[in-house]
Amino acid sequence: MTTDCLFCKIVAGEIPSEQVYSDEHVVVFKDINPKAAVHLLIVPREHIISLNDLEERHDGLMAYMMRLLPKLAKEQGLDKGFRTVINTGPGGGQLVFHLHIHLLGGEGLSGVGFSRAV
Amino acid sequence: MTTDCLFCKIVAGEIPSEQVYSDEHVVVFKDINPKAAVHLLIVPREHIISLNDLEERHDGLMAYMMRLLPKLAKEQGLDKGFRTVINTGPGGGQLVFHLHIHLLGGEGLSGVGFSRAV
Repeated sequence: MTTDCLFCKIVAGEIPSEQVYSDEHVVVFKDINPKAAVHLLIVPREHIISLNDLEERHDGLMAYMMRLLPKLAKEQGLDKGFRTVINTGPGGGQLVFHLHIHLLGGEGLSGVGFSRAV
Repeated sequence: MTTDCLFCKIVAGEIPSEQVYSDEHVVVFKDINPKAAVHLLIVPREHIISLNDLEERHDGLMAYMMRLLPKLAKEQGLDKGFRTVINTGPGGGQLVFHLHIHLLGGEGLSGVGFSRAV
């Protein structure tokens, strides 16, 4: 844990969040400023700053999160589909420097691909 | 290869594309309708329809693509960061039903995270 990291504090339960799922690898909670009817953040428990900081030892974790996404979407009732966004670095719109995957879907998300990112 | 799949045809070289990288796992080319100064599509050679169709045997491929993203961004001069988008299903804005990762950055992409997705 990094003591000044918002998501580390959420993972540790020191800051409350609206959790929808958690296991030994990740914590999943609702974005506090949702950009669509469903807007979840998938956050690894390990403090990895961004995609730029991935190492080979994270391969299992990344693959695990990729296959978790459709399960989470299904649980949220997103039968028609969902969008996944990862922002990396300030120029990519990353606001919290602890790797996280945005999962968005439902009302507010354009079906043909021109709605806002996050 | 699936004979009626646009991206399978691009991977096979039957339809031209502006390739920036390729190897035994993936082909990377410029989006024909770019939403930012840099807009690449990372397409696995294997015809996987979407994230919904991932199996355990794809874990290596997905992890490989995740770690390839920062390298591609760096090669494109995106030193300040980049955005990664995966659209899954029609409700997620997926237009070509062969799994692909959008890599976006540079001018046209909001730095604080509210620009258009793809």
